[in-house]
Amino acid sequence: MSDLPTKIMLVEEGPREGFQIEKGPIATSRKIELVDALSDTGLDHIVVVSFVNPKRVPGMADAEEVVRGMHPREGVAYTGLWLNDQGFERARATGRLEIKGTITVGASDSFLKRNQNRSIEEQIDSQRAMVKRYLELGVPVVRGGMMAAFGCNYEGDIPVSRVVDLVGVVLDIANENNIKLDYFSLADTMGWATPLSIKRVVGAVRDKYPDLTLSLHLHDTRALGLANAYAGLEMGVARYDAAVAGLGGCPFAGNAGAAGNVCTEDLVFMCHEMGIETGVDLDRLIECAVLAEDIVGHPLPGCVMKGGTLQKLRDARVDARNA
Amino acid sequence: MSDLPTKIMLVEEGPREGFQIEKGPIATSRKIELVDALSDTGLDHIVVVSFVNPKRVPGMADAEEVVRGMHPREGVAYTGLWLNDQGFERARATGRLEIKGTITVGASDSFLKRNQNRSIEEQIDSQRAMVKRYLELGVPVVRGGMMAAFGCNYEGDIPVSRVVDLVGVVLDIANENNIKLDYFSLADTMGWATPLSIKRVVGAVRDKYPDLTLSLHLHDTRALGLANAYAGLEMGVARYDAAVAGLGGCPFAGNAGAAGNVCTEDLVFMCHEMGIETGVDLDRLIECAVLAEDIVGHPLPGCVMKGGTLQKLRDARVDARNA
Repeated sequence: MSDLPTKIMLVEEGPREGFQIEKGPIATSRKIELVDALSDTGLDHIVVVSFVNPKRVPGMADAEEVVRGMHPREGVAYTGLWLNDQGFERARATGRLEIKGTITVGASDSFLKRNQNRSIEEQIDSQRAMVKRYLELGVPVVRGGMMAAFGCNYEGDIPVSRVVDLVGVVLDIANENNIKLDYFSLADTMGWATPLSIKRVVGAVRDKYPDLTLSLHLHDTRALGLANAYAGLEMGVARYDAAVAGLGGCPFAGNAGAAGNVCTEDLVFMCHEMGIETGVDLDRLIECAVLAEDIVGHPLPGCVMKGGTLQKLRDARVDARNA
Repeated sequence: MSDLPTKIMLVEEGPREGFQIEKGPIATSRKIELVDALSDTGLDHIVVVSFVNPKRVPGMADAEEVVRGMHPREGVAYTGLWLNDQGFERARATGRLEIKGTITVGASDSFLKRNQNRSIEEQIDSQRAMVKRYLELGVPVVRGGMMAAFGCNYEGDIPVSRVVDLVGVVLDIANENNIKLDYFSLADTMGWATPLSIKRVVGAVRDKYPDLTLSLHLHDTRALGLANAYAGLEMGVARYDAAVAGLGGCPFAGNAGAAGNVCTEDLVFMCHEMGIETGVDLDRLIECAVLAEDIVGHPLPGCVMKGGTLQKLRDARVDARNA
């Protein structure tokens, strides 16, 4: 029927992406409520919190409490994000998260300076040090990642050759340490990607590293999130990060330019309608999206939770015929 | 660089699609203000109003006044929509619209019954009668069109073979009357299309009628509008209907399931970023989108008007370097 993947893997980023940007305050119990609801949808990986400086990101000050309060479901991986050794130690100390390492680089000097006060080179050096630390502690290193791989608000368009070179740097670090990465995530951190640039960048990386499994982390700042995901599917990319209800900065709440990840249930809907499995119960996920709107207290960008699924309409016809 | 079209043609549907669904009332002067603003963007075809029963669609009761009040710009085609002879006569009577005929069929009996109280066959007969009337009056017949070509809320999935057959019926009517259609519009009236079904339907129609120029009328009910447009671009479709700001039913205003056309400025943004010309000044179009939100008095789904263009960020960098 098509050359699209038959099944994709999703990483749910909603709780982390969403609650770090909401002006809040949002009660810890409600954050836990969302994580627990997401656990019952069939999603097998949920990024619950980030361990970052509570002065810079007040919405994540209760990260430990959220992790302590959630009710883990067997078969679901619960992870947290960290950007430095301090955050890593906080994540480990919870004792309730899957702790695996990522080698993360950035394609834009200007963005890294702002985000982490490091140059591209300093970021690479810091990753070498982190990998050493992971291996000392017996923490498996499983992912590579690149921020701003498709463009940068401060630096503009990113040359495809730079992306390919930086993937090579990550793979070198992995090889030096006898690490075999499960996959490499290309992030459109600031919403610069188009379907065409997705195809170009994915194609160029794959030409050079045909055995590397790729993942896409897409932000929906300028409406192209799902079109970009579709371009990824056409390239055979079968791993995506996504955020329930499009949590993570709502263009309708005045957070101009700070839109969240591509919306999980909209992506799941698109996949199911094209015959691509996700392992997720779409109706339950839509309930989570409605819950997320209730928690943040303002409309979120997800569409299918408002427009409804097609399966419901098909089922209603069958019911009417059998009545 | 790619196999995408180098240029596309847009039909702006915002004023018609938008003001017919808003709970309103919206002042006639403000409708005219939007039409006039759209006239200055480079768009060369604007659908201004529909001539329908004011009891059923109160928001279009002032159709004649809007047409009388607008300030037409040379080179822009201003048209109206009608569904029957009465509406057609009203459109003609304005003396200010481009009057051209469309042969319109529908792929769903159940939808046609509700929308026009006709079966598929009765709709076809009515079109034969309309074509006779157009030709008697010297009105050129230039377009074919099909409602619900990708699925129907009442009838479910539509077989691709039915779509191909119905295109054949329209072309037969055209041939019987020595009419050469400029193009044929496939409408996803109720938001059922996916990128995959766009490719299947467009591919099947094109296989049978390779010389027929196709156009897509996409509703963004379930978030797939731009992904579907991208799939159309990949199939070489170079004509799209669209609505500024995504006017035409806003999921955020409680009109569940009644979302408007794919958003014009978001589509233009996607095209420009992929090197596809539209003839439209994106910055001016974004001003129209902001104006549209002001007129309807609630948020509209368009994203680029909130997220901002990439060109602005690129220009800011150049300015900073030259400072």
